[in-house]
Amino acid sequence: MNKELKIAIVGAGSSYTPELIEGLSEHRETLPVKEIVLLDINEERLSIMEGFVKRYIKHLNYDVKVWSTTSREEAFTGADFVSTQIRVGGNKARIFDEKIPLKYGLIGQETTGVGGMFNAFRVIPVMIEIAKDVEKYCPNAWIINYSNPTGLVTEALNKVCNVKIAGLCAGGMRPRWWAAEALNVPEEKIYYDYLGLNHMNFSYNMTIDGRPVTDEEFSNIIKKCTTVSQDWMETLHLIPSQYTQYYFHTKERVQQLKEQDKTRGESILELEKQIFREYADETNDQKPKTLAKRGGGGYSKVAIGVMDAIYNDTGKWMVINVANNGTVRFLDDDAVIETACYVSKNGMKPLTIADYPKAIVGLVSAVKNYESLAVEAAITGDKDLALQALVAHPLVRDYDIAKPLLEEMLEAHKDYLPQFYKNGK
Amino acid sequence: MNKELKIAIVGAGSSYTPELIEGLSEHRETLPVKEIVLLDINEERLSIMEGFVKRYIKHLNYDVKVWSTTSREEAFTGADFVSTQIRVGGNKARIFDEKIPLKYGLIGQETTGVGGMFNAFRVIPVMIEIAKDVEKYCPNAWIINYSNPTGLVTEALNKVCNVKIAGLCAGGMRPRWWAAEALNVPEEKIYYDYLGLNHMNFSYNMTIDGRPVTDEEFSNIIKKCTTVSQDWMETLHLIPSQYTQYYFHTKERVQQLKEQDKTRGESILELEKQIFREYADETNDQKPKTLAKRGGGGYSKVAIGVMDAIYNDTGKWMVINVANNGTVRFLDDDAVIETACYVSKNGMKPLTIADYPKAIVGLVSAVKNYESLAVEAAITGDKDLALQALVAHPLVRDYDIAKPLLEEMLEAHKDYLPQFYKNGK
Amino acid sequence: MNKELKIAIVGAGSSYTPELIEGLSEHRETLPVKEIVLLDINEERLSIMEGFVKRYIKHLNYDVKVWSTTSREEAFTGADFVSTQIRVGGNKARIFDEKIPLKYGLIGQETTGVGGMFNAFRVIPVMIEIAKDVEKYCPNAWIINYSNPTGLVTEALNKVCNVKIAGLCAGGMRPRWWAAEALNVPEEKIYYDYLGLNHMNFSYNMTIDGRPVTDEEFSNIIKKCTTVSQDWMETLHLIPSQYTQYYFHTKERVQQLKEQDKTRGESILELEKQIFREYADETNDQKPKTLAKRGGGGYSKVAIGVMDAIYNDTGKWMVINVANNGTVRFLDDDAVIETACYVSKNGMKPLTIADYPKAIVGLVSAVKNYESLAVEAAITGDKDLALQALVAHPLVRDYDIAKPLLEEMLEAHKDYLPQFYKNGK
Amino acid sequence: MNKELKIAIVGAGSSYTPELIEGLSEHRETLPVKEIVLLDINEERLSIMEGFVKRYIKHLNYDVKVWSTTSREEAFTGADFVSTQIRVGGNKARIFDEKIPLKYGLIGQETTGVGGMFNAFRVIPVMIEIAKDVEKYCPNAWIINYSNPTGLVTEALNKVCNVKIAGLCAGGMRPRWWAAEALNVPEEKIYYDYLGLNHMNFSYNMTIDGRPVTDEEFSNIIKKCTTVSQDWMETLHLIPSQYTQYYFHTKERVQQLKEQDKTRGESILELEKQIFREYADETNDQKPKTLAKRGGGGYSKVAIGVMDAIYNDTGKWMVINVANNGTVRFLDDDAVIETACYVSKNGMKPLTIADYPKAIVGLVSAVKNYESLAVEAAITGDKDLALQALVAHPLVRDYDIAKPLLEEMLEAHKDYLPQFYKNGK
Repeated sequence: MNKELKIAIVGAGSSYTPELIEGLSEHRETLPVKEIVLLDINEERLSIMEGFVKRYIKHLNYDVKVWSTTSREEAFTGADFVSTQIRVGGNKARIFDEKIPLKYGLIGQETTGVGGMFNAFRVIPVMIEIAKDVEKYCPNAWIINYSNPTGLVTEALNKVCNVKIAGLCAGGMRPRWWAAEALNVPEEKIYYDYLGLNHMNFSYNMTIDGRPVTDEEFSNIIKKCTTVSQDWMETLHLIPSQYTQYYFHTKERVQQLKEQDKTRGESILELEKQIFREYADETNDQKPKTLAKRGGGGYSKVAIGVMDAIYNDTGKWMVINVANNGTVRFLDDDAVIETACYVSKNGMKPLTIADYPKAIVGLVSAVKNYESLAVEAAITGDKDLALQALVAHPLVRDYDIAKPLLEEMLEAHKDYLPQFYKNGK
Repeated sequence: MNKELKIAIVGAGSSYTPELIEGLSEHRETLPVKEIVLLDINEERLSIMEGFVKRYIKHLNYDVKVWSTTSREEAFTGADFVSTQIRVGGNKARIFDEKIPLKYGLIGQETTGVGGMFNAFRVIPVMIEIAKDVEKYCPNAWIINYSNPTGLVTEALNKVCNVKIAGLCAGGMRPRWWAAEALNVPEEKIYYDYLGLNHMNFSYNMTIDGRPVTDEEFSNIIKKCTTVSQDWMETLHLIPSQYTQYYFHTKERVQQLKEQDKTRGESILELEKQIFREYADETNDQKPKTLAKRGGGGYSKVAIGVMDAIYNDTGKWMVINVANNGTVRFLDDDAVIETACYVSKNGMKPLTIADYPKAIVGLVSAVKNYESLAVEAAITGDKDLALQALVAHPLVRDYDIAKPLLEEMLEAHKDYLPQFYKNGK
Repeated sequence: MNKELKIAIVGAGSSYTPELIEGLSEHRETLPVKEIVLLDINEERLSIMEGFVKRYIKHLNYDVKVWSTTSREEAFTGADFVSTQIRVGGNKARIFDEKIPLKYGLIGQETTGVGGMFNAFRVIPVMIEIAKDVEKYCPNAWIINYSNPTGLVTEALNKVCNVKIAGLCAGGMRPRWWAAEALNVPEEKIYYDYLGLNHMNFSYNMTIDGRPVTDEEFSNIIKKCTTVSQDWMETLHLIPSQYTQYYFHTKERVQQLKEQDKTRGESILELEKQIFREYADETNDQKPKTLAKRGGGGYSKVAIGVMDAIYNDTGKWMVINVANNGTVRFLDDDAVIETACYVSKNGMKPLTIADYPKAIVGLVSAVKNYESLAVEAAITGDKDLALQALVAHPLVRDYDIAKPLLEEMLEAHKDYLPQFYKNGK
Repeated sequence: MNKELKIAIVGAGSSYTPELIEGLSEHRETLPVKEIVLLDINEERLSIMEGFVKRYIKHLNYDVKVWSTTSREEAFTGADFVSTQIRVGGNKARIFDEKIPLKYGLIGQETTGVGGMFNAFRVIPVMIEIAKDVEKYCPNAWIINYSNPTGLVTEALNKVCNVKIAGLCAGGMRPRWWAAEALNVPEEKIYYDYLGLNHMNFSYNMTIDGRPVTDEEFSNIIKKCTTVSQDWMETLHLIPSQYTQYYFHTKERVQQLKEQDKTRGESILELEKQIFREYADETNDQKPKTLAKRGGGGYSKVAIGVMDAIYNDTGKWMVINVANNGTVRFLDDDAVIETACYVSKNGMKPLTIADYPKAIVGLVSAVKNYESLAVEAAITGDKDLALQALVAHPLVRDYDIAKPLLEEMLEAHKDYLPQFYKNGK
């Protein structure tokens, strides 16, 4: 097999990059990559990462050309896949997303709630620029997006650009992994219906080897979802996303977040300093052990799974963020949903959903409503829409809280929100 | 015109009854009532009311036969309209609905939130019995329902019985009344699109005399909706139900409810004692002045409006609670919605809604989801469904709160919830 | 009441004009018209009609200013209603519509089938020009359209212009008139569900005075629909449009059309010569008797009914051609349907349809599919779309017939189809 | 791999059986069949077939247990797949389906039009009995149905029984095979959107290796669809089912059918005599050469494809007849459609269809409307429904033709239509 693939990694200064490299290396038999380009605007991190990755592929005995650039034109020209994993404003901005909402008694979190909305506000304008360049320099390439919040990013790009994009998250595959582990069966034997959005979703009708899981098996599987009450999951008889903890256990989670010494962003900021010291160490050619504490596992597995399904046209069942187009009948066509798809070289085709679990359609509708308003606000910079989005969010809803919170968040993130400050507003 | 109508008033012991009598009296030209039957299970109040109404119609010079009974068979046989205005458990039960949720930091209210759900749990089984007797004794009669929560009662009856029912609330006509008053135009000149549910609805695209209201007119109209922030209504550019205050100003309302001396139910309990003393006074043949403090205006206006539109086949535009059947595309066919209808002898036909205000579809979906789960729980007495309904409610949502709250409410209302305690559970 | 309405009649040279004048005269109490402007491109007929109408209103003792013009600017400025009743190519073109399809064994008819499509192709470009001038000179006026085929004209104008348009046909009210006559009840007592399109529709669930019609009454009503087999209507238990004869009795109707001496268009051409001689007779101030043979009754009744409902804001139930917007769930939002509406100053609001008669949804879908393709072809002049429209038509369907027929029809009507011959094609 | 599969072949006396055996033999590596049971009500043909199949598997060196029975209980107990390929009334009944409609100027064909409806009327009651026994004796088995008309049979079984059924036809895979052959690419590289029903469907948006086919490639592919006008397919830019010839070239096909010496059924009747003589020949252990003239190729390929996808849980893309459930938005949920599915051990999950080719939605709707009415009539034996179904069929539509034709067909097939002659009617 001739080597033929060129992969551009946008936001390559991320500490995740080596895991993606490792994954590609492990799949070298099926994914014949000839070239990996690292792209970042942070030249210092980019240079450290380029150095490390070059040592690392030597260590892995992985024969591939690696180079870095800050030019999208160079990175994208000829690319087959553009992996995007950016965080605009970095972990510093994330810390605002985590801390400010807490002052108002709300969940502070990078993808869920107010924090997620501002994450979207910061990331979407940049992702649109990136996608416009994909349109220009490699129109047939697939964008493999991991930038959070991936559902909102995907919906925004679908609206404004004409690109092929897969909005990824390991969350959609997690019920498979949980069941495989809990029941000791190969994951490929496991299917389920999947309703919802990124970080707001529910799996049900699970089958193993074509037969429904038993109640006992179900109970064992949901034990893996440690963030949500087991009793509640039994009552629902659904496997929820771990992130639904913020909806079902709001009060307790707010309390816990308030009590913690450091926010997740603060911890990671520290951790990353350590990790980058190790990356920068020219004698080191292996993944830093500290990385394990960093979290975010499953990332490269899903990303490479999608690339493999596309490149090798394997027709794989995967859960991905795509435009609804009638899949979920109570949502709009252009709403991006997270849903089970048939993935092949022809792209992602959602599987029809025959029945919905009645208990959670309202919650999914409400969160999607927030998402679509937030996407529109992120694109236009319309403050009234941003306020409507916040009030539409089930975790906010109270106008009296939303109003001042919005102002404080806008002010805090001002430097990364050009769309809201267009005319010097 | 020959007198021909027989009207049965179920729950006639309610202090509202005289207002309904007064309204019928005022419409004697168009609604030729020959007989009004008062029905109640509280024989004491029924007897007082019968005495008063007989004096009152004499005072009004209203020539109609009035009598009372505790037999549904007698009351319903030959009836044209069955007006239902029952409150199961009375204001005593209502006080639990108001007080217990507050202990959990939630809105305590007779139609919105947890309180509304338990109100539905108590009322629905009784309303089903009543409707079954309507089926039996006067199958062509219309049930004019005012029992709260009217949307859930209507949905339950549609599910279980085969009766003609109009679920009423003055709320749907209020934007008309507000606009008529604010702008000094006849109310018949005013139309609007109306999206939502009882006590969770939004009016928009208002026209006067065929032309859209101006921004200035809009600002004047919303001043009448004193419970919701004017700024927020301007941002939404929608006229909300006054009850949306509990969603948009939750924190403040909870605080206010906590700080009040007496709950609404407690005040009314006292007030009603005074009102009934006046009703019982055999020298009195006029509506007690205390009644004005009782609230609930607009009731007889809407009820008689519907009877008139049906009896005289006038083809009136009215907002009523009816089965969705495709009117709102993101809700199920059997979901009862509050919506603008063409009302004639042929019943209520909802008007198609061409466009939805994007900012509030999630909230409406979420509340409807709660409602449908609650209706199902009210009919079946399934505790798991009741718990799902509570968690689906945007004002509750937190499982950790919902779980103990449900238990406490079930216990408090035990005597009125036979469906939940079937097997001595 | 001050006189205030200005009405512009487009295509006023039509022999129908005096009936419209007569209708307005009869409703002078409720429709205070101060000015009627007659507009036509045929100056000879326009002049005859102006002369006659002036004598006629004197005869009717109807005090209104009547004048004529060939300038749309003059006619439309200040107009409240623009009545459009044009026939592009006149009855001569109509005769092609009637005769050419017959050569191919198909129905030849001015609104149904191939003939109707070419009628649309000729009329739509002219109606678009008219509507653009309405936008310009009297943007608040309502277009009261009677130009055939009214459903396609309405859909085209909705697509291309921004005007208020009511697509009228007496057909939608005919089941009411039939039932009123057959059962001797006032027509206002009669309601029904109505599914379909102009000239392809079905009435059902009919009620009189709020109660369903009996089987015997139904049998009496359908006797009025003389063009369709009584047995078949009994089997369907639906009241069809008279025009459905061309679908349910195709073979027989083709035979009859082939055997007739003259087509309808030819007869009318002769009749109109006679009618116009009478109109031109300056001693004559009354409607010619010959007019009765002309047909098309009910026209002014429906047109004036709509103007009255709008002007006086009466909230009437009427069947009108409007955009679907979710009324019929299996058709697109922008598909124009003929449907029961609530008509007021606020326009036409379709009533939700709860259930569809299963036997005819396919036929309605197929004809609507043809219509939407034909509208698109009429606007764009795309011959491929015209061919697809013809093959989509249930009365054509056979490609081998459609292909040469399309060519022959295009050639015959060439002078009136600028959109298909744009580049001298 | 242990041998483990038991396959029951219902209607095993069909001349197709050996091809199915051959297919199974070719896939012995992936489909480890231990037992094949032949079931038929025609004991003579069953005995001949059993004899031949036993010689044939020896010839193929295929180690499997083959035996025959007339007992469904014996055949089904323990079965994993039940292959159904029955023809009620045999080719003799088929000949009526072909000949009688022609007398009325209509297409006479075993699956399309009147003939297809009566085929359904004969087959559905028998298939329901079979399915009830599957429910009873092997509830986890998949019914692999090839009995014509497969869409109607599948819809009927979904309505009345609770079985797992795949309604098969080679037609859905044909565009793949055509493209693979025309362009010399592996078939697995080819995908398309697929809209419609069995024998009334259209493929579009075809991709090869992830990229859209070029116009030139499209032109080459459609050359394989020899029954439909190339020009017309170019105009549509769709790949139609070969059976759409009966809709797009009706007149010509009727003429051809009228002119043929023998109907297809008559030819096959003769052919089968010859084929069965060869099967009966105890010295013969190979497929008769005459079989090639028999037609119906692709049968075993698709049937075994589905069994393989299910048994080995391979997640294959295949076109299959399944319940709609929102896949095609303008059709009912329980309407069976032919559509692209993801096939695994978990069954068939249709892929969402994002856009529909506008030119043919009406035709598909109309045929589906006929189908659903026909299924209902086939189950209930309601003659009015049968008449409505016929008139709803685009190839019939004329009531005057449908009425006597229905009577003649009912009479001809009387012996096989117990549901229509329940009370000696």
